[in-house]
Amino acid sequence: MSDLARFSINQMTVKQLALPDLVDACVRLGVPGIGLWREPVAEYGLEATAKLVRDAGLTVTTLCRGGFFTTAADLDDNRAAVDEAATLGTDTLVLVSGGLPPGGKDLSVARSLIGDAIAELAPYAAERGVRLAIEPLHPMYAADRCAISTLDQALALAEPFPASQVGVVVDTYHVWWDDRAPAAVASAGAQGRVHSFQLADWTTPLPAGVLNGRGQLGDGAIDMRAWRELVDASGYDGPIEVELFNDALWARDGMEVLEETVRRYVEHVL
Amino acid sequence: MSDLARFSINQMTVKQLALPDLVDACVRLGVPGIGLWREPVAEYGLEATAKLVRDAGLTVTTLCRGGFFTTAADLDDNRAAVDEAATLGTDTLVLVSGGLPPGGKDLSVARSLIGDAIAELAPYAAERGVRLAIEPLHPMYAADRCAISTLDQALALAEPFPASQVGVVVDTYHVWWDDRAPAAVASAGAQGRVHSFQLADWTTPLPAGVLNGRGQLGDGAIDMRAWRELVDASGYDGPIEVELFNDALWARDGMEVLEETVRRYVEHVL
Repeated sequence: MSDLARFSINQMTVKQLALPDLVDACVRLGVPGIGLWREPVAEYGLEATAKLVRDAGLTVTTLCRGGFFTTAADLDDNRAAVDEAATLGTDTLVLVSGGLPPGGKDLSVARSLIGDAIAELAPYAAERGVRLAIEPLHPMYAADRCAISTLDQALALAEPFPASQVGVVVDTYHVWWDDRAPAAVASAGAQGRVHSFQLADWTTPLPAGVLNGRGQLGDGAIDMRAWRELVDASGYDGPIEVELFNDALWARDGMEVLEETVRRYVEHVL
Repeated sequence: MSDLARFSINQMTVKQLALPDLVDACVRLGVPGIGLWREPVAEYGLEATAKLVRDAGLTVTTLCRGGFFTTAADLDDNRAAVDEAATLGTDTLVLVSGGLPPGGKDLSVARSLIGDAIAELAPYAAERGVRLAIEPLHPMYAADRCAISTLDQALALAEPFPASQVGVVVDTYHVWWDDRAPAAVASAGAQGRVHSFQLADWTTPLPAGVLNGRGQLGDGAIDMRAWRELVDASGYDGPIEVELFNDALWARDGMEVLEETVRRYVEHVL
C-alpha cells in the first residue's frame, strides 16, 4: 500500500489552484482522494467536475457542506447539496450545522433545530446514497457557525439514525483540546460513525475572525500522529483529508503548497 | 439590598482609569467591589493600593493572577502573588494555569504539571488566608494560555483539596458554549468551590489574537441573566465581577465605560 493510499486533499487547502490543475497534480503525485466544496464546484460546473475527477480516477472523499440549519427557512438548499454529492460520486456530505438563530441566546434551541433538520434530511440523503457527517466545530464558532462543539454532541445527534445515514467528522483542529474526544472517537468508530477524518494543525496567534488560521501539519500544537493512531484504533480505515484554510498558504504557489502538504503528511501523520 | 450589592468591577475593564480615579468612581456610584491585577497594582505600589482600597471601604474580590505553571521553572512568582493577595486583603487568587510546555504537544502532560503546582501552592496560600481559584479558559486558549478548558477539568483539579483552599472561577466568556457547564456549576456550588463569578459577553467577529474581544454585557450571544440565575441556584451568593478586555472599550472615556457597565449589569444581569 502506497504511503498516500488514504491521503485526500481538500480543495480549499490549495484554492488558488484551478480544479484541472489540482486534479492533474493529484494524479502526478499519487494522491488518490479529493475533498470538494460546493461553491468552486458550481463555478467549474457540477457535471464537468464530476467527469473531471471520475476520468482522473480520483475518489471524492467529501463534499462540503450542508447545514446552517438554524438560520435557513427551509431545507431546499441542503437537498440540493445532497443531490450534488450524489452527482459527484461521494458518499459523504459534511454538515456545518449553524450557530444561534438570529437574536437567540440559547444554544440548546439551536441544537434542537439542528436535530429536527437532520431528521428531515437524513432519509432524503440515504435514498441517494449519501451519508450526513455532522462536524463539531471548535467552541469558538458556537455563536455564529456551529452550536455543535464536541464529538459527544455530534454523536448524540447522530445516534437516533442508522450509522449508514448519519455520522460525524473528526477534525483535529476542532476537537484536539477536548479531553473527552478520545472516548468519543472510540465510540464513534465502534458504531461505524466516523464518516470523515480531517486534519489541520493548531497555530497561534489566531487571525482576526479565526477562520483562516488552520495550520499546516506539523506547524502547530497538535500531535497529528497520535490523533491518526487514535482514529485508526477506533476501527476507522478510510480517507485522511487535509483541509487547511490559511491566508499565508493561499498566498503561495499552489503546487508548492500541495507538495509540501504531502510531505508533511508523510512526516507527521503516517 | 442595593442593586449593586454584589457588583464588582475588574480594573482591566477600565484600565484607562488611574486607580485613585477608579476607586473614587466606585465610591460615588455605590460599587462595593473591585478586582485587581498584579501589574497595575505593582505600578501604583502594593501597599499604596491596599491602603487606597481599604480606606475607600472597597472589597477586593479577586487578584489576577497566578498560574502559568507549565512554563515557569519554579513557583516563586506564584508565592509572591499569594503574598500580594494577602496584603490586598482579598481571599481569592485567580489562576490562569498555562498552556502546553515549550515544544510539547500533550495537553495531559500540561494538566499534570498544573496539578503538581497547585498541590505545592495550595497549602502556602491557605496559611495566608488565600484561596486558589482555577479558571478554565475557553478552548481557544488551550495551547498557549490554559490547558484547563472546562469547569469539569477545573473541578477535577480542585477536588483533592479542601474547598476552602482550591476552587474554580465561573467566567461566562470561557464556559458559555459548554453543555456540561450547568451541571459542573451545580456541583461546584454544592461543594462550596465557586470562588469567583466573572462576566463578559461573547461578541463576534473575534479580534486577531482573540484576547481583547470580551464583549460588554448585552452586546453578545450570552444570556447573562440565565447564567447569573444558574450560578445563584448553585448556592453561590458572592461577588459578580465584570471583567472585559476590549480595545474598543479601552479607547473610550473610562468613566463613561464604568457607568455603562453598571447600567448594563442592572439591565442584563439582575
